[in-house]
Amino acid sequence: MDMIRGVLLDLAGVVYEGDHVLPGAVEAVHRLHEAGLPIRFVTNTTTKTKKELVSRLTGMGLEISGDELFTPGQAARAWLAEHDAAPFLLVHPNLEEEFADVPNAPARAVVVGDAGRAFSFENMNRAFRELVDGAAFLALAKNRTFMDEDGELSLDAGAFVTALEYSSGKDAIVLGKPSPDFFEAALASMGCAPKDAVMVGDDAESDVAGALKSGLAQAILVRTGKYRDGDERRFEPPPTAVAEDLPAAADWILDHRTG
Amino acid sequence: MDMIRGVLLDLAGVVYEGDHVLPGAVEAVHRLHEAGLPIRFVTNTTTKTKKELVSRLTGMGLEISGDELFTPGQAARAWLAEHDAAPFLLVHPNLEEEFADVPNAPARAVVVGDAGRAFSFENMNRAFRELVDGAAFLALAKNRTFMDEDGELSLDAGAFVTALEYSSGKDAIVLGKPSPDFFEAALASMGCAPKDAVMVGDDAESDVAGALKSGLAQAILVRTGKYRDGDERRFEPPPTAVAEDLPAAADWILDHRTG
Repeated sequence: MDMIRGVLLDLAGVVYEGDHVLPGAVEAVHRLHEAGLPIRFVTNTTTKTKKELVSRLTGMGLEISGDELFTPGQAARAWLAEHDAAPFLLVHPNLEEEFADVPNAPARAVVVGDAGRAFSFENMNRAFRELVDGAAFLALAKNRTFMDEDGELSLDAGAFVTALEYSSGKDAIVLGKPSPDFFEAALASMGCAPKDAVMVGDDAESDVAGALKSGLAQAILVRTGKYRDGDERRFEPPPTAVAEDLPAAADWILDHRTG
Repeated sequence: MDMIRGVLLDLAGVVYEGDHVLPGAVEAVHRLHEAGLPIRFVTNTTTKTKKELVSRLTGMGLEISGDELFTPGQAARAWLAEHDAAPFLLVHPNLEEEFADVPNAPARAVVVGDAGRAFSFENMNRAFRELVDGAAFLALAKNRTFMDEDGELSLDAGAFVTALEYSSGKDAIVLGKPSPDFFEAALASMGCAPKDAVMVGDDAESDVAGALKSGLAQAILVRTGKYRDGDERRFEPPPTAVAEDLPAAADWILDHRTG
């Protein structure tokens, strides 16, 4: 067993559910902080700004700083900074302000997220032309469908990412779970190597198998949120451990942190 | 060598180029007609109605009846009639009238073509929901890009077909060259088996290799239109024969028609 030097925590279904924090979650996060373990809260949310999310979570009583929240939007900002590139945005209107202060640069990157109604032919074609002209291609998500407000499935961002991939011949760098690029960026933001990290999530496929496939040494599946009986046997690789909830996962981490 | 009982002719680059008919093409088509060979003019055009196309071709002096013109739109109409299905259309506005008299039916089929500006999120999502609800999926084309009026590449219908495939999990039936579904539908419309058919085209990949891969016994590459030196060696399977132009291809067909 390696040393644990960093923790990735999924949010919905692990820390909170709907509008309320899950039992013991506030105290579990506090214990991880007290133990000096760096944490990143990793979420695929692409419709809320970091500011909105942090204010919602602190409103639930959770200890969380802006630096600890890692979203696909954050990962895209980090990528743009590292590659000295300016974005062409096709994202949710709420997310545009997140990129407002990105400096102009000669290099370009198309950033595609949950643009919804903004996925017009004109905007898609502008993004396509940027790609043909040499822009890099970042996707904040590649989900196929989502449950819409009217209770029916709707087309998710992945459809439009795939459309641009098909016509441009470029594969998007996907900056959301379960993409290795995303897990790596979250760990890099706290200077932690994958072999020293643990991920905690309620989604056996995307959070747990996804993290292990991305090279993380450990991933714990919690039986809260979207967990369904038998999920620990449904995907490869299986979880390193299964815990009742986040407090039990924190116990496991604190027990194993010194290897 | 099998008997030739039916001829498929590409249009642009074989029969005409831009606004003028190619030398000897009118007379070559006349000779094929005189010999009693059934013909289908197969084209991937999805922005003009059959009526517009026929009137343009007869204006050039060509012998052509409406039944002889086979477009992706025609193929879709034939598919709908055969499967007793009503369409949800996401096609070029010019093509909508082509489907105006298709009777209502309980079964549904999404038909996607060069919708251009009509590829809005709302329309794409309506098409997606039809597919999720069980509609069949017909694509009039799956091209990646086209040269737009401003001289730059633009997103072609294939991007939007691929987007719907990705999110619905359904593969589209593609009703344009080089799809086997399209060649087969054109031959079926004149009661000709693939083993008795010959295709004539200027595109070594889509027209010629595409026809042979679809099971046609013979395919002739003509050195007009988009033909470039060496094209006959560039794709598999290679053409059965290479002809200088449509008149030379007609000579070959008339020489070989009795096996």
